[in-house]
Amino acid sequence: MARTTGSDGGRTEAAIREAAINLIARFGYEAVSMRQLAAEVGVQAAALYRYFPNKEDLLFTLMREHMEDLLKDWDQARPASADPQARLAAFVRNHIRFHVVRRHSTHVSNMELRSLSRDNLSHILRLRGGYEKELRQILREGADSGAFRIDDVGLTAIAIIQMITGVIVWFRPDERLSVEEVAETYLTMTMRLTGAEEIREKPHVHAHA
Amino acid sequence: MARTTGSDGGRTEAAIREAAINLIARFGYEAVSMRQLAAEVGVQAAALYRYFPNKEDLLFTLMREHMEDLLKDWDQARPASADPQARLAAFVRNHIRFHVVRRHSTHVSNMELRSLSRDNLSHILRLRGGYEKELRQILREGADSGAFRIDDVGLTAIAIIQMITGVIVWFRPDERLSVEEVAETYLTMTMRLTGAEEIREKPHVHAHA
Repeated sequence: MARTTGSDGGRTEAAIREAAINLIARFGYEAVSMRQLAAEVGVQAAALYRYFPNKEDLLFTLMREHMEDLLKDWDQARPASADPQARLAAFVRNHIRFHVVRRHSTHVSNMELRSLSRDNLSHILRLRGGYEKELRQILREGADSGAFRIDDVGLTAIAIIQMITGVIVWFRPDERLSVEEVAETYLTMTMRLTGAEEIREKPHVHAHA
Repeated sequence: MARTTGSDGGRTEAAIREAAINLIARFGYEAVSMRQLAAEVGVQAAALYRYFPNKEDLLFTLMREHMEDLLKDWDQARPASADPQARLAAFVRNHIRFHVVRRHSTHVSNMELRSLSRDNLSHILRLRGGYEKELRQILREGADSGAFRIDDVGLTAIAIIQMITGVIVWFRPDERLSVEEVAETYLTMTMRLTGAEEIREKPHVHAHA
């Protein structure tokens, strides 16, 4: 069902999504009932079923849209530059910016893969694979061109994604650092991890030699 | 209650722990009932309450023992060497080795902080803080001595722990890599991330210059 915000139905559907993400992030998918969700939104359970035929369909929709939004977001943020370091920087900044404002949704997406049926799980894993592939491609091209030093492109991509997604576990907007500052610190760590920092600094060192 | 494996009571208690970790990892704490857990272990619900007065006490015990075991484990693995790079290497190897064989327990420990009462949460966070402090200390001393290049010791410690704990999400013993190979790859990434790789390599580069 399309998200037609503005109409009453659109507003109800958006309220269902938001309440579902918050409840599932707090209690876990298995512990949340459609009845409880309806009460949270302030509608009859029957109204819920008009938007989502069953609880797993609701979970699948939330997780699918999370990944589709992330892919769309990266598609728009992707820089025109072919430089692997510029592309990696854009990837890290965009990933952190996207996830810190979707803390609960990210939490649900990472936690509740266990609760999906096999077909739905395959679908979500394909979307995740597509996103990870973007990073693997940046890393591989950078490794080939000498912009990065990487031993295992697959493991490095997973390690970077887990490291930068980890921001949502501890980051709160009222922390000592802004999102931008956190993103820059994580970017520096990513650049070191991929050897980019070292490679970038070498010409500077040589200029003084 | 002490873990007296060998006695009937000890065996029952160990079976409760194991079943609880598996059920909570699969369904989430809120969705698992003491009745369901008793059925899984094959005892009456009343027998469960002899070991754990209530469900949160059981969760707290599982999470507390996970952290106490980790701290004890690191205490034994901690190298005599004062060299920050050797200590960081030991920390990373030990962390990965400890967690890959406790995948469900790690999952529960990371996920179910949300389900602890305030006092129990404080207790667990203190234990976690104590463990993270070990890493922060290694990083700080290495940064001071010039063995590492680190911008923010606190963020770097969190980033490393999240990156290396992330192994449990995808690693299975039948993967293309052994635990030891995975640990070495993650160690190389950690050494790059902290600038240790670069610093370690410099004398080599200079020798050829």
